Amino acid sequence: MTEFSQIRAAVIGTGFIGTVHVQALRRLGVQVAGVLGSSEARGIERAAEIGVGYAYASLDALLADDSVDVVHVASPNHAHFPQVMALLDAGKHVICEKPLAMTSAESAQMVTKAKASGKICAVCYNIRFYPLNQQAHGMVAAGDLGRIHFVTGHYHQDWLAKLTDWNWRLQADKGGALRSVGDIGTHWVDLTSFVTGLKAKSVFADLTTFLPERQRPTGPVETFSSAQGATETVPIDTDDSSAIIIRYSGGAKGVMTTSQINVGRKNSLIWDVAGSTASAAWDSETPDHLFIGRRDGPNEVLMRDFTLMNPAGTRAATLPPGHVEGFADSFFNFFRAVYVDVCSGTRGADSTWATFEDGHYEMLFCDAVVKSSREQRWVDLGEH
Amino acid sequence: MTEFSQIRAAVIGTGFIGTVHVQALRRLGVQVAGVLGSSEARGIERAAEIGVGYAYASLDALLADDSVDVVHVASPNHAHFPQVMALLDAGKHVICEKPLAMTSAESAQMVTKAKASGKICAVCYNIRFYPLNQQAHGMVAAGDLGRIHFVTGHYHQDWLAKLTDWNWRLQADKGGALRSVGDIGTHWVDLTSFVTGLKAKSVFADLTTFLPERQRPTGPVETFSSAQGATETVPIDTDDSSAIIIRYSGGAKGVMTTSQINVGRKNSLIWDVAGSTASAAWDSETPDHLFIGRRDGPNEVLMRDFTLMNPAGTRAATLPPGHVEGFADSFFNFFRAVYVDVCSGTRGADSTWATFEDGHYEMLFCDAVVKSSREQRWVDLGEH
Amino acid sequence: MTEFSQIRAAVIGTGFIGTVHVQALRRLGVQVAGVLGSSEARGIERAAEIGVGYAYASLDALLADDSVDVVHVASPNHAHFPQVMALLDAGKHVICEKPLAMTSAESAQMVTKAKASGKICAVCYNIRFYPLNQQAHGMVAAGDLGRIHFVTGHYHQDWLAKLTDWNWRLQADKGGALRSVGDIGTHWVDLTSFVTGLKAKSVFADLTTFLPERQRPTGPVETFSSAQGATETVPIDTDDSSAIIIRYSGGAKGVMTTSQINVGRKNSLIWDVAGSTASAAWDSETPDHLFIGRRDGPNEVLMRDFTLMNPAGTRAATLPPGHVEGFADSFFNFFRAVYVDVCSGTRGADSTWATFEDGHYEMLFCDAVVKSSREQRWVDLGEH
Amino acid sequence: MTEFSQIRAAVIGTGFIGTVHVQALRRLGVQVAGVLGSSEARGIERAAEIGVGYAYASLDALLADDSVDVVHVASPNHAHFPQVMALLDAGKHVICEKPLAMTSAESAQMVTKAKASGKICAVCYNIRFYPLNQQAHGMVAAGDLGRIHFVTGHYHQDWLAKLTDWNWRLQADKGGALRSVGDIGTHWVDLTSFVTGLKAKSVFADLTTFLPERQRPTGPVETFSSAQGATETVPIDTDDSSAIIIRYSGGAKGVMTTSQINVGRKNSLIWDVAGSTASAAWDSETPDHLFIGRRDGPNEVLMRDFTLMNPAGTRAATLPPGHVEGFADSFFNFFRAVYVDVCSGTRGADSTWATFEDGHYEMLFCDAVVKSSREQRWVDLGEH
Repeated sequence: MTEFSQIRAAVIGTGFIGTVHVQALRRLGVQVAGVLGSSEARGIERAAEIGVGYAYASLDALLADDSVDVVHVASPNHAHFPQVMALLDAGKHVICEKPLAMTSAESAQMVTKAKASGKICAVCYNIRFYPLNQQAHGMVAAGDLGRIHFVTGHYHQDWLAKLTDWNWRLQADKGGALRSVGDIGTHWVDLTSFVTGLKAKSVFADLTTFLPERQRPTGPVETFSSAQGATETVPIDTDDSSAIIIRYSGGAKGVMTTSQINVGRKNSLIWDVAGSTASAAWDSETPDHLFIGRRDGPNEVLMRDFTLMNPAGTRAATLPPGHVEGFADSFFNFFRAVYVDVCSGTRGADSTWATFEDGHYEMLFCDAVVKSSREQRWVDLGEH
Repeated sequence: MTEFSQIRAAVIGTGFIGTVHVQALRRLGVQVAGVLGSSEARGIERAAEIGVGYAYASLDALLADDSVDVVHVASPNHAHFPQVMALLDAGKHVICEKPLAMTSAESAQMVTKAKASGKICAVCYNIRFYPLNQQAHGMVAAGDLGRIHFVTGHYHQDWLAKLTDWNWRLQADKGGALRSVGDIGTHWVDLTSFVTGLKAKSVFADLTTFLPERQRPTGPVETFSSAQGATETVPIDTDDSSAIIIRYSGGAKGVMTTSQINVGRKNSLIWDVAGSTASAAWDSETPDHLFIGRRDGPNEVLMRDFTLMNPAGTRAATLPPGHVEGFADSFFNFFRAVYVDVCSGTRGADSTWATFEDGHYEMLFCDAVVKSSREQRWVDLGEH
Repeated sequence: MTEFSQIRAAVIGTGFIGTVHVQALRRLGVQVAGVLGSSEARGIERAAEIGVGYAYASLDALLADDSVDVVHVASPNHAHFPQVMALLDAGKHVICEKPLAMTSAESAQMVTKAKASGKICAVCYNIRFYPLNQQAHGMVAAGDLGRIHFVTGHYHQDWLAKLTDWNWRLQADKGGALRSVGDIGTHWVDLTSFVTGLKAKSVFADLTTFLPERQRPTGPVETFSSAQGATETVPIDTDDSSAIIIRYSGGAKGVMTTSQINVGRKNSLIWDVAGSTASAAWDSETPDHLFIGRRDGPNEVLMRDFTLMNPAGTRAATLPPGHVEGFADSFFNFFRAVYVDVCSGTRGADSTWATFEDGHYEMLFCDAVVKSSREQRWVDLGEH
Repeated sequence: MTEFSQIRAAVIGTGFIGTVHVQALRRLGVQVAGVLGSSEARGIERAAEIGVGYAYASLDALLADDSVDVVHVASPNHAHFPQVMALLDAGKHVICEKPLAMTSAESAQMVTKAKASGKICAVCYNIRFYPLNQQAHGMVAAGDLGRIHFVTGHYHQDWLAKLTDWNWRLQADKGGALRSVGDIGTHWVDLTSFVTGLKAKSVFADLTTFLPERQRPTGPVETFSSAQGATETVPIDTDDSSAIIIRYSGGAKGVMTTSQINVGRKNSLIWDVAGSTASAAWDSETPDHLFIGRRDGPNEVLMRDFTLMNPAGTRAATLPPGHVEGFADSFFNFFRAVYVDVCSGTRGADSTWATFEDGHYEMLFCDAVVKSSREQRWVDLGEH
C-alpha cells in the first residue's frame, strides 16, 4: 500500500456517508486534500469537525485543483450526474455513491464518458466488500453451489417508520422516483448480481406507500437523526416498501422485498442463494458469518477467516478471524481495492468493485421497477 | 381433560403424519379405536408398528363403527374430499389434514356440509398451535403492533432438491396442481392470516419448476425417505418454488416465497409482520422464540413462558419456560383445543383452530395463485 | 413397538414431571395402569385431570398390583430411596427421576439391589435423549473430535431469582443438601459424561447462596408456579449457584456453573466439548442444532436429520429434519429406548439410557462437591 | 475532533496490532509521526507497507523526537515496562498494549511514575469501547440490573490448537508466565470489572497445558499466521486453558474460562452478568447485540443504536444503528476517547478508558492466578 500516501483525494458531501469516506481514506493512508460541503460555510464547519484541513469553496474550485487525483461523490442523488460529468471532464478518477444517477438516461451518458475518460470510475456498492460476500462470489464462480436456482431475501430498515421521521430521500425530486428500492434495494440487487453473476432480464414490482402523508420539519435534518420542532404535513409518494420478482437470464428466479418501515429492523439486508448442489446466505447485521447449506452433510457457518477462504474472500479481508469486520471496514476494503487500481491506472483483472456499467444496470433495473409497478405487468430491463 | 378418555377416535392414513396424529391422541388420553391404511394389509402392518390395536378393513368399516366419535383424515390430498363427505354423512367429527381438498369447488361443498352437520370440522393447520403463534395472534388482536402494514417471509425446504428425490406430491394428479404452495405455502398463508387477522383480496404469483424432469422409483416411497433401486424419468410440472405478492383487504401487503429445493433449509417457515408501532417475527426452526421489533426501546425475544404471555398464548402452552415445545407438541396443543370443543359439542368462543372455512379460503387462495401464474396478472380471490 | 401395548406402567408423582411421564407413556402406546399421588385425595384429583383411569391409594397398593410391570418414580427426591427399594423388592422394573437418592450411601444400596434384582433400572437423565446428544456421544466414541481436552458450559435458570419464588427444592431436608447442583447441575454432569465418556476423578467446588432468606407461602405451591397470599421469612442455605472445576481421569478438564437466579435464562443448559481435532457444543434452548467446531474448514451446524446422523443419533430421532423435537420428545425417545429393553428383559448392547450406576456416580459427584465447597479444596470422588 | 490533526503520535510495534493502531489514528485524523519496528530494517519495511512516512531507528531516536506527543506501545509484552518508563521520562503521553507489564512489581512502578508524570497513561483494553460494553457499564452504574450476583463467561480461541501453531506468546520468557489468562483472560477480567464496577478480592485458579510439547519453526512467525518449513520440538508450560473462580468484594461471584485450543472458536469472548433484577450478556463475535435478561417481561436484544442507548453507550458509538461496528471501530472509539483527554491534558470526569491502575490490577490478578494454581488454594489479590 506504499503508494497510497502519494495519492490525493477529495470528498464531495460531508454528511454521514461522506465522513465514512474520509475516515476510510485516512485509515488507508490516502491524503485527503479537502471536502466540499453543500455550501461553503457548511463545508468549512464540517471540515473542522471531521478534522480535514481544507474545504473547497465550490465545485469549480475542486475541479480546478490539479493536485487532486480522485474525487469521491457523496452528495445527494440528484447531484451525482452533473458532478461526475464535470469531474471526468476535469480528468479526475471518480468514486460515486449509489445510485449512480437519477435516471438511466443520465447513467448511460456517464458510462459513455467514463469509458472515454480512461479513468477509474467506481460506484459505492461497498457491501460487496464485506469479505464473505467476496467469498460467496468466488464460491459461485467456482461452481461450489452448482447451477443457481432461487435468490431470495430482503433489505429492511425502520428509520422511516414514524410519521415524524424525515429525510430528503422521502421526496422524489431529491432522491429519485424510488426510495426504498433506490436507496437500499439497489444494494441488494447489486450484491446478489455480484454474488451470483446473474443479471435480471425482467421484473415484476409492487411498490407501496403506507404513509402517504408525513410531517416535515421546517429546519434541516441529518440522515439518521430525528426531527424536532415545527413540522408541516406533506404528501409522500415514494415507496415505503417494495416486492420485486426477478427473472434472470438463464432461468434463475429472484424475489426481494424492501422496507423502511419494518419496526425493529435497523439495517437488515439478507440474501439467500439456492443452487442445485448447495446454498449460501448472508445477513448484514452479522456480516462475519456466512451460511452454507448442504444436503449431504451438516450446514456450515463460515466465520471470516483467511485460512479458510478462497482468493476473492482472502483478498478483501483485513483482520484475523473472529475480530469482527463491520461497515467501516467494508469501505476500507472497497477503497483499498479501488486505489490499487488507481495506482496502476487501470482496473485489474481480479477487481470486483462495481463499475459505472454496474451502476447503469441498477438504473435500468429501477426504471423497469417503476414501470412494472405502474403498469402492473412484467417489464424487461431496457424495454421501451 | 378428564373427558378425553371417553372419546374414541380413528385415524385415516398411517404414514408419517398419521403416526403423529395417533401419538398426539394417545398423549392426550383420547382412545384410538383404530387406523385405516392405504390397503387392509398396509393398515394391519402399520397398526402393529404404531401399537394401535385395530386396523379397519375399509372406509366403510370405519364409517359403520358407531363407537367412533372423531375421525382424523391424514390420507393423500386427493382422498380428503370423498372421505370427509362420507364421514360427515356418517355423523363423525372430522379433523382433516391440509389442504382440505383438491379444488375450491370441493372445499365449498365441504364447508356447506360441515355447517349443515353441526359437527366439529377442523383443518390441520397445526402450526397455529405453537404457543408463540397464538401469542402473536393475541398481540395483533390487542393492537400491540398497531396497524398491520407489511407481511413477509417464506417456507423453504430441501427434501426435493435432488433429481432423485421422489414423493407422491410431485405429481399434480396426486397432490394437486400446486406443490410447494399447496403443501407448505398454505401453512404460511394460514398462519399469517391467523396472526394478522387479514385475508388476501388479490394475489400475483410466479411459480417455477426448476427440475422439469425427475427420477421416479418403481417401488413405493415414504415421505421424507430416499428412493433406492430402479427409477424412470418422468416430467414434472408442479412448482419447486413460488413467489407470491398479496394485497390484503384494508391496504396491507404481503410477500411469500416457497421452495422445496433450497439446499440446507430443512423446514424453514419464517413470518415477519410489520405493524405501524411494532413488529413480530417467528421461525419454525426455533419455535420457542418470538421476535418483537421496536423503535423506542430494544427489540425483544420472548421465550415461550406462561408467566409472560397473553391469554391466547398461555392457553396453548404445555411445558414450563425453556423446556422446548416442538412439532409434536403443536399437534398436542392443537388437538387438545379441538377435543375440548368435541367434548362440549361446539366450537368455543375463544377457539382458534382452523375451520373448514379457513381451509376453503386456502383453496380460493390456491386457485388465484394458479390463475395468476398462468395469466401473469393480479387475480382476485374468488374471481371468475 | 408392538409389544409396548402389552406393558403396564404406573407413575408415582403427579406434578409437572409425573404428567410428562404419563403423556410420554401414552404416546408410546404403553398402558398407564394408574398414578400414585402425594395423598390418596391428591392422586384421585390429579388422575382425573391427567385423564388416567386409576389412582392408587398408597404405595402398598401399587406394590401389590401384580399387573404392573414398570413403575416410574417421579416423587420428591427424599422419597426415591425407600420407594425404589420397595419396588425392586416387589419385582418391578424401575425408572427413577434424578437425583437417584439423597445420599451416596442410599444410591450405593440401590445399585446393589438393582443388580441383584435383574430388573431394568433407569435414571431419568432424559436430556441424553435429545437426538443430537446421542449424535455427539456417537461422534466422540468414533473419535470424530480426537482426544477430549476441555469441557465447559453451564445450566442456568431464573425461576428462583426472586425472594418470593418458592419450591420444596429450596429446603435441604426435602431436596437434598445441594439445590442448583443437585437439581440441574447433575443433568450437565451426566450429559457431558455421557457425551465424552469421561468420569470425574476430583472436583473443586464453590457454592453460593445469594438469597439467604426467602419468603415461604403458607399454602402449597406447584413447581414452576408462583407463590401467592401469605408468606413467612425462612433462612435458606442451599446453593443458588455453583462453580465446579473437574479433573477427569485421563487428563481432560471441565468447568461448569449452575444458577437458578440468572434472570432471563429460563432453562439454559449449554455444553461445549473441545477435542484435539474438532469440538462440539449444544444448547438446550435450541436442541435441534449441534455446533461442530473445526480448524481446517468452516464450522458446522448440524440440524437433527436422520439422513446425516450416526447410528446413535438416528436411533433416538423421531421426527423428520426441521420438525423440531423438544423436551417432551426427549422423554418419548428415552422411554422408547428403555421399554425396548423392558420388552427384551435386559439392557441392550447399544442402550444408552442412564443406569443406577450412573445415578450413583452423580451422588458421589455431589458428595465431593459438598465436601469441596465446605473445605475449600480439591476432593476426589469417593474420598473418605 | 478538530484538534486531533494537531497531535503527533508514534507507534512502537509494527505487527498486526501495531497496524491496527496506525490505521485507527489515521482514521481519527491524528498525525502518525512514525513507527518503531523490532529492528531498524524491519521498521522501514513495515512503515512502507503500512504507508507510514517514517520509521525510527531506535527507541532513543523516538524518545528524542520532541514533536511526538503520544506514543503507542504495541511491542511484545516483555518490552512494555522499559519502554513505557523511558517514554514517561521523556514526557510522552502513553497508550500501552495489555498486559501492562510482565510482573506486578513492574506495573506498580509504572503506576507510580504515571501518577508523577501527569501524562495520559492508558492501557489498551479496547474491548471496553465496543459501544454496547459502554452501554452495559452505564446500565449497571444506573442500577438497571439491581445488585450484581453472578458473573460468568469465557474467552476461547483456537489459533493455538495444533501442535504446529506457533507464537512468541507460547514461551513464558517472552509473553509472561500466563498465556491464555494473560493474553485474553485479562481482557475478560478488565471488561467484566469495567461493566460491573466490581474488583476481585480473591481467586481460585486451575491452569492446564494440554499440549506440553509443540513444534517451533526455526524462522520468524507473524501472530495469527501459520508456521511453515523446519520445526523443532520444544517443551511448553504456559496455560492452554484456565478455569478461574472469583470472589468479588461485596459478595458477588465470578467464573471465567480461557482457552486457546477450543477448535472452531476464533475469538469468542462472552460475558454474562446476572443481577438481582435483570441480567445482561455480550458476545464479541456479534458485538452489536446486547442481551438483556428479564423475569417480568420478554428478554431484550439491544442493537447498538444511539437513539436507544444511555449516555455512556451513545458517546462511544460511531455509526448508525445496524451498520455493524467491529474490532477496528473499538480502537477508533477507544483512541477517540483517549485523545479527547490528550487534547485537554487530563482525564475527563466521564472517561472510561483503562488507566495504569486498571492495568496494575490485572497484574495483581494474574499474580494471584499463578499462585492459586500452583498452591491449589484460594489466593487474595495482593497477598504476600
